[in-house]
Amino acid sequence: MGKIDIQQLYDLANHLRIDSIKMTCAAKSGHPTSSCSAAEIIATLFFSEMKFDKSFPKNPSSDRFVLSKGHACPVLYAAWHQVGHISTTDIMNIRKITCDLEGHPTPRLDFIDVATGSLGQGLSCAAGMAYAGKYIDKASYRVYCLLGDGECAEAFASYYKLDNLVAIVDMNRLGQTQQTMLGHDADTMAKRFESFGCHTVIVDGSNVVELLNAYNIARKMRSDLFSQTKDKPTAIVAKTLKGKGIVGIEDEDNWHGKPVSENTIEAIEQRLMNKADIAGTFQIKPPANDAPDVQLPIGHIKMAPPAYALGDKVATRQAYGTALAKLGDACPRIIGLDGDTKNSTFSEKLFKKHPEQFIECFIAEQNLVGVAVGLQCRDRAIPFTSTFAAFFTRAADQLRMAAVSFANIKCAGSHVGVSIGEDGPSQMGLEDIALFRAIPGSIVFYPTDAVAAERATELAANTRGIAFIRTGRPACPVIYSNDEKFGIGKGKIVHDSNKPKALIIGAGVTLYEAKKAADKLQSENIEVIVMDPFTIKPLDKDLIIKSARRAENRIITVEDHYQAGGIGEAVSQAVSDQDIRVRSLFILDIPHSGPPDCLLEKYGISAKYIIDAVHQFVHPPN
Amino acid sequence: MGKIDIQQLYDLANHLRIDSIKMTCAAKSGHPTSSCSAAEIIATLFFSEMKFDKSFPKNPSSDRFVLSKGHACPVLYAAWHQVGHISTTDIMNIRKITCDLEGHPTPRLDFIDVATGSLGQGLSCAAGMAYAGKYIDKASYRVYCLLGDGECAEAFASYYKLDNLVAIVDMNRLGQTQQTMLGHDADTMAKRFESFGCHTVIVDGSNVVELLNAYNIARKMRSDLFSQTKDKPTAIVAKTLKGKGIVGIEDEDNWHGKPVSENTIEAIEQRLMNKADIAGTFQIKPPANDAPDVQLPIGHIKMAPPAYALGDKVATRQAYGTALAKLGDACPRIIGLDGDTKNSTFSEKLFKKHPEQFIECFIAEQNLVGVAVGLQCRDRAIPFTSTFAAFFTRAADQLRMAAVSFANIKCAGSHVGVSIGEDGPSQMGLEDIALFRAIPGSIVFYPTDAVAAERATELAANTRGIAFIRTGRPACPVIYSNDEKFGIGKGKIVHDSNKPKALIIGAGVTLYEAKKAADKLQSENIEVIVMDPFTIKPLDKDLIIKSARRAENRIITVEDHYQAGGIGEAVSQAVSDQDIRVRSLFILDIPHSGPPDCLLEKYGISAKYIIDAVHQFVHPPN
Repeated sequence: MGKIDIQQLYDLANHLRIDSIKMTCAAKSGHPTSSCSAAEIIATLFFSEMKFDKSFPKNPSSDRFVLSKGHACPVLYAAWHQVGHISTTDIMNIRKITCDLEGHPTPRLDFIDVATGSLGQGLSCAAGMAYAGKYIDKASYRVYCLLGDGECAEAFASYYKLDNLVAIVDMNRLGQTQQTMLGHDADTMAKRFESFGCHTVIVDGSNVVELLNAYNIARKMRSDLFSQTKDKPTAIVAKTLKGKGIVGIEDEDNWHGKPVSENTIEAIEQRLMNKADIAGTFQIKPPANDAPDVQLPIGHIKMAPPAYALGDKVATRQAYGTALAKLGDACPRIIGLDGDTKNSTFSEKLFKKHPEQFIECFIAEQNLVGVAVGLQCRDRAIPFTSTFAAFFTRAADQLRMAAVSFANIKCAGSHVGVSIGEDGPSQMGLEDIALFRAIPGSIVFYPTDAVAAERATELAANTRGIAFIRTGRPACPVIYSNDEKFGIGKGKIVHDSNKPKALIIGAGVTLYEAKKAADKLQSENIEVIVMDPFTIKPLDKDLIIKSARRAENRIITVEDHYQAGGIGEAVSQAVSDQDIRVRSLFILDIPHSGPPDCLLEKYGISAKYIIDAVHQFVHPPN
Repeated sequence: MGKIDIQQLYDLANHLRIDSIKMTCAAKSGHPTSSCSAAEIIATLFFSEMKFDKSFPKNPSSDRFVLSKGHACPVLYAAWHQVGHISTTDIMNIRKITCDLEGHPTPRLDFIDVATGSLGQGLSCAAGMAYAGKYIDKASYRVYCLLGDGECAEAFASYYKLDNLVAIVDMNRLGQTQQTMLGHDADTMAKRFESFGCHTVIVDGSNVVELLNAYNIARKMRSDLFSQTKDKPTAIVAKTLKGKGIVGIEDEDNWHGKPVSENTIEAIEQRLMNKADIAGTFQIKPPANDAPDVQLPIGHIKMAPPAYALGDKVATRQAYGTALAKLGDACPRIIGLDGDTKNSTFSEKLFKKHPEQFIECFIAEQNLVGVAVGLQCRDRAIPFTSTFAAFFTRAADQLRMAAVSFANIKCAGSHVGVSIGEDGPSQMGLEDIALFRAIPGSIVFYPTDAVAAERATELAANTRGIAFIRTGRPACPVIYSNDEKFGIGKGKIVHDSNKPKALIIGAGVTLYEAKKAADKLQSENIEVIVMDPFTIKPLDKDLIIKSARRAENRIITVEDHYQAGGIGEAVSQAVSDQDIRVRSLFILDIPHSGPPDCLLEKYGISAKYIIDAVHQFVHPPN
């Protein structure tokens, strides 16, 4: 009873495997290989190790399971199928709009506690559950979290053998409000850096001889240590005291961020100074002057022009990659960086053509942006970072700080909005416009077709500052000719008429929907203007106002993005001081997995909804 | 020449120390103790180890220095003073609005490459610089990065001895686009988890016997290992193959996220299945049913009422802490979490009263939010997380995913806007309203006074979902009586008149400015209405429209926040379908350090600017 033999576990693992393969085949998308590697892990957990209530998955006493590598959910769905909790029909309907077995797991399912699919988060959630179990519930349930190896990628510096990098930890024991996690346990701190590939040295951080020795080791000046230090960054763990040298304050709590009292300064000074005058006693070591003189040709980087035929179906992410590779031809200091998505963002086009101009940063987007900020310092490079737009949220703080650094970095976010389809909400960029618009001085490009995407990339390279290029997953027709001119803050009218009743503003997939709507409305003798803003920041306010004036002061915006900080709000704000009325279509709720077209429909941003909005705006019901 | 003796370095360190103490005294704020611990580190780096060009700090060949613990900038400024690059007058003017030696360093200074002050970012930037040096410039310059120990705090699970937590790494070697950083190097992966305090076990992840044994170790069932495993989370590094079991795909590149071809399924199935029927061969282990039955009293958590006198000067962050502690009295499942800022956010009031209802998460805000999401699963807790509002950007991806998880978490962000003053832009929350508004279904509270802040906290506790409470640093007068009723989506008119010319909407510090402006305007016989929205999401659209209608259809918004996604855009959007005009005052540029009042003035959100805006709106110049 409750016992299971080893062969049965292998059999069960293979069942999970086969089901994962079948269900992703049926869905025509998904991650069978990532599921197959975990089959025995899931089989042993579910059918031998874990205690849980199969008829009431949310039983508070059950062991928890968190699939941090959320893309492997087919194997998890297969397990709940074996348990008897999901029907065969259901597992064969994964990723469909009618089935809650989405492309990445969400708590729409009663056996999922936390949504996963944005890698690198599951273990934090699992730790929260374990904390609740041990300390709040004081119960025996246990928490199991399955991670992918790809999401454990925080070792950039050692991976790239950055032996010119020295990290020094000022281990002063005290945080703002209490002792730090490690206090003065320098050994453990050193082990952490060591495990990430650094050579580590522990020193008394107030002893200058020990410090100088550590720097020598880092510079590989100690031949006896060469085999240990070669090709490695160095981490020096320096044990210090907070407030060192200030009697009564040194190593004491509650002195973070507080000046000493003015009247104690003299005594402190007298105690510390044994020679008042040090002027002229030292010289600064001059640099070797061996860094090349770089004059970035910003403003003059010429890209070979786009080469499409009107109507060609090309995703803007693909055109981004094409442009990036061409810009790489034009300027060797254009450097691509990606977070293991280069075949999705198409930054691999640069990688394939100019591997020396590409840095794979693996799945650690915060580091991806941080590295880019470092690269652009002193004009060493023009970094183009790319990943799914949604995953730039992982680097929101780094982006905020990049602005404070007045950094020159470019970010291309692909897979935006519900139009990515089956992969589900964790992969959909729906707040990226808001994120990047909020950065002072930023430029937000939202190119609709391949020609526009190439030009956006070229303009980004040629303009200092932080630029975001929002690219889409689906292949859509080219609507602009190759010699079309684009400018920052310059929108385009893509559908015009003589007696327009409304101005419709869309971008990317919604511009195509707006054009469809305009054609349909024309057949009903309702004329409209359709505008492509090209950049959401800055917005072509003049063209918007001019066009709206012509269109009876009515604007309808439609975007594959949430409302806050999106196109609708940007447009509303731009015309807020005018007697122009704006109505907006946007994504209101957490979307579901499903085919892109169905999702545009379900979330109300398709041509049909645009037509309805025009009808209601132009002929309001009584 | 260029050589320096040991005693001179100690002397120099003490000079840096004294200068750090003096300049923070002069500024009446800052971090002398965090500077003093690093004095010898900086002295040895600057006066012996590093090669740099003191007259041209941005020389591309110079060694780089990144102060990841940006709050210790006084000691860095002191070093550049010793070098002769900064005058004595300047260092004594740090944190002033007229001096670029800000509270945390920014590249407004020619010797700063990247802004720091948001902990945990410097090493990424430094790695980018080191990469540029080694591979792009191919030059000899080196990169030194000084970190605080507090910003190396990623060991929550071991710190809290979560021996009920098992992390299993599915080490299948292949990422989406190439081999992962570590490939199958399980030893290094294990060392990383071990260094963070896990007991680690390496297994063949396709071998069920090895897996079962590892789980037993994790459950502390192996007495021979008890001394090693006691009180520790376990990490199992499971070596697997991606696509395991699928011939021709197993362990091969380019199969990430792709289904196999439909016609190969049968062959795969035949190869893998040795027993087709496993029905009834296993039973699931039932839970121990020892978790307490929790019925969270959401909607009925009663807090002791606020107890202020009108005019009392109380910061809203302080009132948040007071309310949180009282809510903790009312409900033992209210749990506070903070990122080592509890004495700034005032969550320490809960900690002091109910230490068992508080979890210190240290400086790792991404984990702070992740842990909170884990805690709230299966209604185990109502987590209230708090830190500086700016630092919630670190957790933007976790917050996005919390929404996909339909999580019930509360976030209180303090130190918002330029009104924090001297600490400078890295510490100012200026995009937090946008961040939290973009979360579907979220509530964004922006209480102006202490009474409102207490009620916001109470309402947040009593409403399921993600709520943000924006609290301020400065102590401002109480304007509401203790029995004032507050509701979500219910604004308040705080200044009214008979023939108003405009409606002014402000919140927090800007509501006080709006009231000042209204009083001044009244003396000029220009009447206005002033509204406190209380929640920015949902917004009290009815009251806004009704009030604007009375005020000649003019609205002026004023906020201590950037434009994108802020109050101005929210209001513009809310009235976009009306013939109401909106003009907005907001923070346009990256702010500078300085006294709060000066910053409100410099960035154009003070009473003076509101008055100007009303004048121009009501009597436009010809």
